[in-house]
Amino acid sequence: MAIKGESLIGSRDVSTVQTFHAVNPATGLTIEPPFAEAGEADVEAAAQLAAEAFPIFRETTPSARAAFLEAIADAIEAIGDELIDRAMQETGLPKARLTGERGRTTGQLRLFSTVLRRGDWVDARIDPALPKREPLPRSDLRMRQIGVGPVAVFGASNFPLAFSVAGGDTASALAAGCPVVVKGHPAHPGTSELVGRAVRSAVEASGLPEGVFSLLSGTSHTLGTSLVADPRIMAVGFTGSRGGGLALSRIAAQRPVPIPVYAEMSSINPVFLLPGALAARADQLGTAFVGSLTLGAGQFCTNPGVAIGIAGVDFDRFIAAAAVALGGAPAAAMLTPGIADAYQRGVDALAAQAAVEELARGTVPNGPNACRPALFTTDAKAFCATSELSHEVFGASSLIVRCADKEEMQAVARALEGQLTATLHLESGDETLARTLLPVLDEKAGRILANGWPTGVEVCDAMVHGGPFPATSDPRTTSVGTLAIRRFLRPVCYQDLPPALLPPALQPDNPLGLPRLVNGKTELGGAP
Amino acid sequence: MAIKGESLIGSRDVSTVQTFHAVNPATGLTIEPPFAEAGEADVEAAAQLAAEAFPIFRETTPSARAAFLEAIADAIEAIGDELIDRAMQETGLPKARLTGERGRTTGQLRLFSTVLRRGDWVDARIDPALPKREPLPRSDLRMRQIGVGPVAVFGASNFPLAFSVAGGDTASALAAGCPVVVKGHPAHPGTSELVGRAVRSAVEASGLPEGVFSLLSGTSHTLGTSLVADPRIMAVGFTGSRGGGLALSRIAAQRPVPIPVYAEMSSINPVFLLPGALAARADQLGTAFVGSLTLGAGQFCTNPGVAIGIAGVDFDRFIAAAAVALGGAPAAAMLTPGIADAYQRGVDALAAQAAVEELARGTVPNGPNACRPALFTTDAKAFCATSELSHEVFGASSLIVRCADKEEMQAVARALEGQLTATLHLESGDETLARTLLPVLDEKAGRILANGWPTGVEVCDAMVHGGPFPATSDPRTTSVGTLAIRRFLRPVCYQDLPPALLPPALQPDNPLGLPRLVNGKTELGGAP
Repeated sequence: MAIKGESLIGSRDVSTVQTFHAVNPATGLTIEPPFAEAGEADVEAAAQLAAEAFPIFRETTPSARAAFLEAIADAIEAIGDELIDRAMQETGLPKARLTGERGRTTGQLRLFSTVLRRGDWVDARIDPALPKREPLPRSDLRMRQIGVGPVAVFGASNFPLAFSVAGGDTASALAAGCPVVVKGHPAHPGTSELVGRAVRSAVEASGLPEGVFSLLSGTSHTLGTSLVADPRIMAVGFTGSRGGGLALSRIAAQRPVPIPVYAEMSSINPVFLLPGALAARADQLGTAFVGSLTLGAGQFCTNPGVAIGIAGVDFDRFIAAAAVALGGAPAAAMLTPGIADAYQRGVDALAAQAAVEELARGTVPNGPNACRPALFTTDAKAFCATSELSHEVFGASSLIVRCADKEEMQAVARALEGQLTATLHLESGDETLARTLLPVLDEKAGRILANGWPTGVEVCDAMVHGGPFPATSDPRTTSVGTLAIRRFLRPVCYQDLPPALLPPALQPDNPLGLPRLVNGKTELGGAP
Repeated sequence: MAIKGESLIGSRDVSTVQTFHAVNPATGLTIEPPFAEAGEADVEAAAQLAAEAFPIFRETTPSARAAFLEAIADAIEAIGDELIDRAMQETGLPKARLTGERGRTTGQLRLFSTVLRRGDWVDARIDPALPKREPLPRSDLRMRQIGVGPVAVFGASNFPLAFSVAGGDTASALAAGCPVVVKGHPAHPGTSELVGRAVRSAVEASGLPEGVFSLLSGTSHTLGTSLVADPRIMAVGFTGSRGGGLALSRIAAQRPVPIPVYAEMSSINPVFLLPGALAARADQLGTAFVGSLTLGAGQFCTNPGVAIGIAGVDFDRFIAAAAVALGGAPAAAMLTPGIADAYQRGVDALAAQAAVEELARGTVPNGPNACRPALFTTDAKAFCATSELSHEVFGASSLIVRCADKEEMQAVARALEGQLTATLHLESGDETLARTLLPVLDEKAGRILANGWPTGVEVCDAMVHGGPFPATSDPRTTSVGTLAIRRFLRPVCYQDLPPALLPPALQPDNPLGLPRLVNGKTELGGAP
């Protein structure tokens, strides 16, 4: 498949005079070809096509949309090694990681196709008429969920496949029946175009309106802001920085018709090391902690940015093991020069804090844009008193917090901002302390782990990759897992509509075989 | 039960030096006793108690919360006639209406208790561990919905019981496990206090922390704004004007931690009169339309503010019948002097539009604060070209829109803003036209009715009392019906947590008997 450097507006390829290049972050060299800088006219055209496609696309049957998502997955796989090779050049990420990420991306699309066929996302509810009820009869009332409208998706830098053109936001929006306009991340435009062409081929093969999918590439802020401001866009999916997410949220809130922005932004993913766990395996925990921290140069939303323990010999063993492991951790190229700069600024800011000590640094880098791992220590009082110590440093930097006792550990938990994850390492004997921490963490995090590491996010029904602000802009939602579809749905109720005019989801004979709540009782349905 | 003119902060009665009085809108006379003006210190105290109660309240069992909601319903009924009498004085609404509204309020509380026992609101999901999966094992992942935190509820002027202190917002928030701080509407403080004392008695009888419920009374804007700005408040329920809802939304968005505001605001509830329906029963439709329009002095969010038909003899018959009915419709006292003033300004603004003609006015009022019903006509071109014609006039005023043909009727549908409801009157033969309108109305309204009138909102599983902006601030939600609970919930995932530390909703033996999605299949549960 050829990379032409074009935006894809429906079925049309669009090039422009102004162009930009991808850069290989591991070498600092630019990669051909040049890419068209999409502008406001392109936003206009893509949004208009999406709006025209919406009424048709949202009323396709669940099984038709399921087949469409499967066709996208097939088309992505059909690109073959070219996709992995291009993504490696554009991101500096290793082949095994990108191959795994491709599997996650296609698996995610196929999972949403099973959700579509399962049908619970429709949330069909029927309260039949009660004509003889006193004092007033009840009308026939039927409810279903429908797509909210065209969705803007912002590709993330750190997952060029799974959180990008055909990633979780796109998969869940398409599953909901919403056309998608993607703003591809400018750090991997070739990867984006390859995937975009695969999605387009699935649109065509599925006989869907061209406006179901567009991909706009560009480096300007105005591209993203004009997309969010476009009146035809009805929701936004974003994964990126706190500043970026807040800027888009402000634009969305100030529109004549405000819309939701689902921004996954900032999390330091605290890890609580309980005394029993430290007594049993402090050394092993120290090494494993650094493994999670330095994985992929620490460029995960869920990387463990703070580890909390109670001062003592066991915690000292953890710290010593972590210091050794981190000291031997190699520097690795980060995704972009901008991310490498921000990492360096974040590490410098931590190091400059009076209450913070540097514990260890990783290998000195010998290439451009490198993340040299960093580990710092502080104490609980300083952590609770200094909000800067809770700021995310995107990359392989973490802060170890020494607590004097259990009460200080609880105070640290209470001082946390909202998080994507919170982790407990515990053994039998730690339950009492865990029971004091869990109610606090329930209010702070979208996912609570025991005896694991937060990096690695399963795509399944029970996953929550979300959490209270600033982890996300909307703690009622997740951007990973099947519940993500709910972000792009809204309920519509039909009162006394003649059966012939009801949508199939709500017709008396249940032609779609959906599970439905009828008279307050769940009827399981079953494929027709 | 004595009305003491006090705010209820947990178990404490609070009075102040500064006071205000309720006014009987039908007479213009003040009603005793004076009511304490709650201020910022009261907000602070109520929010603090709510935050302290939250971790305890949210982990009460669903059946305990169900019993609590039933105790509130019982306590409201136990107030007896005093409640109805006071509400009549404070609102000018008739006894039958208020008695019905009380039944709706207690029925709503009891419906949420059945929802709690049904358990589907927990949305429990379990993806068991797959330790042998290749290439990577899967952890044990379990998800549940929990309350978002303390909720601020703003009582509405037009439903002193069903959208007020123990109305739908309060019932759904309490059901979700969220403590509630109500800002009572200053037009009916005595009604509010009576209901508030009933809720408090149920809190006490149920052995719950006092902070589960507080009621603040006052007339100042700063009372409401400081409540929304309080960092312990995590969501807001509001029913009222577009200006009020937008002001609260702005405050909530500008907080250091933004929170959702569920504001139900502004809707003109279009009624489309299709040719077959007009041919069959134009006269009857004209009379019934005015009946719905003038019900309760038109003070319903769902009152039909615009009626659309295709010019011709049948539509003329409808217009003539409506004019006759409206000409005989009596003036009625509105809820407050402010509402009566706003009605007069709205009617004057419509009458001043060049493209609008006055068709009929109701009886000239002979008391204060009256709504004199009003009916205007315009044509489709003017309606589509003049956004002011789409502004809600709260009260018994409506605009009849003449379309030249079906295409103009479709254009009117497309020109509409977001609505709570849209109605079609149709007969066999109208299906083709209805099929062109329904996809447009799906995008515009939360509820679509056939051959009925939008006033009258059933409290049930399938109800949607919501809709796209400006009908509400969040079209993914409803403020009436069991789905309303979802506004106050957020998902939390537990990964590999030891069974003893899991919340009961997710424990292996399902002690709460909840329906759960296990390995992608629904297991119905059943009470334990």
